Amino acid sequence: MEHEKATDMEFMLKANLKCSGSLSEAVSSDELTEFVNYCNAELLKKGAPPGCGAEVVSWAIVADKLELEIVSDRFVRAHDALLRLKNEFGKFLGKHRIGIRGMEINDYEITMDWDTELKLKKLPFVKAIKQEAEKLKLFLDIDEFLLEKRIPDRIIKLLDDKKEAIKWKGKSEHWELLFESAKKPFHFDKDPTEEMAKRGWIRHAAGRGQFIYGPQSTKIFRAFERILVDEIFTPLGYEEMIFPKFVTWDVWKRSGHAKGIYPEAYYVCTPKTRDPEYWEEVIDYYKVTNEVPLDMIMERIENVGGMCYAQCPPSWVFLQGKTMPDDILPIKVFDRSGTSHRYESGGIHGIERLDEFHRVEILWMGTKEQVIAHSKQLQDTYRYIFNEILDIEWREAWVTPWFMAQEGKSGLSELKEVGTIDYEAVLPYSGKLLEFQNVSVNGDKYPKGFNVKLQSGEELWSGCSGVGLQRWTAVFLAQKGFDTDKWPEKFRTAVGELPEVFRFL
Amino acid sequence: MEHEKATDMEFMLKANLKCSGSLSEAVSSDELTEFVNYCNAELLKKGAPPGCGAEVVSWAIVADKLELEIVSDRFVRAHDALLRLKNEFGKFLGKHRIGIRGMEINDYEITMDWDTELKLKKLPFVKAIKQEAEKLKLFLDIDEFLLEKRIPDRIIKLLDDKKEAIKWKGKSEHWELLFESAKKPFHFDKDPTEEMAKRGWIRHAAGRGQFIYGPQSTKIFRAFERILVDEIFTPLGYEEMIFPKFVTWDVWKRSGHAKGIYPEAYYVCTPKTRDPEYWEEVIDYYKVTNEVPLDMIMERIENVGGMCYAQCPPSWVFLQGKTMPDDILPIKVFDRSGTSHRYESGGIHGIERLDEFHRVEILWMGTKEQVIAHSKQLQDTYRYIFNEILDIEWREAWVTPWFMAQEGKSGLSELKEVGTIDYEAVLPYSGKLLEFQNVSVNGDKYPKGFNVKLQSGEELWSGCSGVGLQRWTAVFLAQKGFDTDKWPEKFRTAVGELPEVFRFL
Repeated sequence: MEHEKATDMEFMLKANLKCSGSLSEAVSSDELTEFVNYCNAELLKKGAPPGCGAEVVSWAIVADKLELEIVSDRFVRAHDALLRLKNEFGKFLGKHRIGIRGMEINDYEITMDWDTELKLKKLPFVKAIKQEAEKLKLFLDIDEFLLEKRIPDRIIKLLDDKKEAIKWKGKSEHWELLFESAKKPFHFDKDPTEEMAKRGWIRHAAGRGQFIYGPQSTKIFRAFERILVDEIFTPLGYEEMIFPKFVTWDVWKRSGHAKGIYPEAYYVCTPKTRDPEYWEEVIDYYKVTNEVPLDMIMERIENVGGMCYAQCPPSWVFLQGKTMPDDILPIKVFDRSGTSHRYESGGIHGIERLDEFHRVEILWMGTKEQVIAHSKQLQDTYRYIFNEILDIEWREAWVTPWFMAQEGKSGLSELKEVGTIDYEAVLPYSGKLLEFQNVSVNGDKYPKGFNVKLQSGEELWSGCSGVGLQRWTAVFLAQKGFDTDKWPEKFRTAVGELPEVFRFL
Repeated sequence: MEHEKATDMEFMLKANLKCSGSLSEAVSSDELTEFVNYCNAELLKKGAPPGCGAEVVSWAIVADKLELEIVSDRFVRAHDALLRLKNEFGKFLGKHRIGIRGMEINDYEITMDWDTELKLKKLPFVKAIKQEAEKLKLFLDIDEFLLEKRIPDRIIKLLDDKKEAIKWKGKSEHWELLFESAKKPFHFDKDPTEEMAKRGWIRHAAGRGQFIYGPQSTKIFRAFERILVDEIFTPLGYEEMIFPKFVTWDVWKRSGHAKGIYPEAYYVCTPKTRDPEYWEEVIDYYKVTNEVPLDMIMERIENVGGMCYAQCPPSWVFLQGKTMPDDILPIKVFDRSGTSHRYESGGIHGIERLDEFHRVEILWMGTKEQVIAHSKQLQDTYRYIFNEILDIEWREAWVTPWFMAQEGKSGLSELKEVGTIDYEAVLPYSGKLLEFQNVSVNGDKYPKGFNVKLQSGEELWSGCSGVGLQRWTAVFLAQKGFDTDKWPEKFRTAVGELPEVFRFL
């Protein structure tokens, strides 16, 4: 790799090894010189290309401490060198009946090539950042505990991520056309959300990007679900499950969402205690002012996760840590037991872009071959549904995998079998394309994240497909309109009579 | 009322009326004496029984201020007296071309009879509390703004609430048997949650009181739903709606939940902004440490409401502020579109007491007569379902209305038509009774709270009934067990074959 040259990164570490007794009394200077020379010649070079590695450039004994200054390149990073040294010094001191009590990190500077435009203001465990002449210099603020947790390596990895993100920034997301339906007749040229609201089929709820669905729109949603049951779940052997709708951080750590979900999450917090006395002041304040004391509440709750965002991740806990016999594969399940929530960007988007939406999540797993084959089968079925039942105009595109996008990553997955197909349809009223569902092959990402194995030892793969009921509705009504006589007959039959329950003056 | 005697409450208020010019120059002492005498004789007595009301006990002019000391009983509370006085003094000063610029509240003490054991530590807008010899003395910390918002009255109302709560404390909740089914044969004596977990029908999810439901348990839930469809929704003319699942504070203020839900709510917070830069530090910290920085998150989010708790309240926004023609009544709708969440007390309760549960919410509205009549019809249908389809042993009891319980109130509603019937069934393995659903007539509470009217001007009433799918399952399996041959035939047919999808080593 082009970056793997010795000079692109320099490490300078000043640290002390604290010992259980006075070194100046117990160890001779000659012995120590010999020890350091050995380390510089062998221990701190091990595994590095010739001429590379780390080096102790100065050292001194002060009472019970060995003071060290270590410099290195990227091949044996100075903190790794220190850990090697600590270990070796421990053995060396053993014969003098002295032990190592700890490490003090005085200075740790990392200098690296930095040829991107990205300006860094703040980094975790970094007390100062200098950027000049295509060089980046970090002054770390770490201790023994953080060093042993390899925090310096993770800071460097973080910088790599940031560089990678910069490379993609500005470029549009990956998008590659896979299939395009025939042109279809459109029977409507207005915003379907406005029309639904006018007809009383929906009403904006109290929350941001949130609607209440009246009997007519709910009946359309349920017709979509029945189509899924009749065309996919029954013929392809799916069974229904109920996935959790509150998602803990542990799930999002395993699914990767903890890497990037933050700006879009609906956070869930629970009371620090349900002791009524703890809440009495809040209740009293509300009763006296008729205002909910949000500040008092924030002090009394703690964040434990968020509301369902991607739907399938929390279901993997069902399988977490388990091993399954291969003969039960492929497994096909779906969930339609609740809402998903995303803090979407502002502005009015109607039912096309919602904070609270309803999705049928389709999840299958098996060997790599089974998962890819089933993805193709699903794609065929969707084409049938969109062509023959909904009669809509749409297209399919190969895009950045959803799980990468949700982790804040761009680009494509490394494997060409793993990835996401987005289904897009034009909304005649705006001319814009709406992504209304996806089919994804997720590779072994989830089985690995949740430690699920096959008896045979073969890799377990999985795929998922999310059908957004509001998105299907938006596309269908935008293209086909509200005159049910103009709806394709199969869909009209599937929906049946639209119920009229409410009327207002 | 026995409390309405003049001596049970005393108010002492020291306040200044600040004017736009020097009073000592503009107004003669005689004029002022006459004004105060008039107020004491008439203005501050108006509406009070003879010998009662408020009185200015001392006053003085200092530059541009009228300094007042007002004492009163409960009939014209001193802060009301001050507001009357301010108004009248404004008129009086008009002829001298001086205006009133504001009020300064220096001291406000309220003394009242206090014969309960309740010790008060803290009250909103009260800087000190003295409790002695069956008297309670409050030293208020308020200003003009809070006085005009009638905060003193609300503090007194809060104390009344607390006294009321004390009266009920220790007493068990109201409970009155309405109906008891015949004894039924039990086919199981173990904890159904444990058995379901053992069979792989459910698995504890990552959250507190949260499960993932496998294909078998989901199929049982869906059979319950189909029974509701076949026995209630279709024959009784119900239509499905989709109610919001994130609930804003505004909804809970209108529904009354803001009065008491706090210790049990799952709180929802949204990002203060979705600007990626705002979240970069959080993401960096996670990437470097693999730990989610909860403190950093808490600083970046704000509480906006909670997760669905009682299910029907947020649906009322659909009707908020509307007037409906009477001829569309009664209206009957149901919602089964998502989860409900309650921060339940600790300990393991299995699927009997969950933090995350699934409920079909049944909501009807109409005139008082229609709502009561439909409640009876529903009760009859439930009896049929429990007797003829599920064949369980259960009973019905008249209890504290659910909306009062959820507002932190005890006792019964004032109207005997308004209230809640709880359905309880014994769990043979523990001998304990489980409340597994309810039927409630809520009177005009929700139409009033959300300002929904009828064209005729008649009162709109509503009722609701929540069917907890986990609770139905817990009761049925606890009584009837897992040997499907022993299940009542109608239910066995409704469920069909239990699917086997997963198997683990």
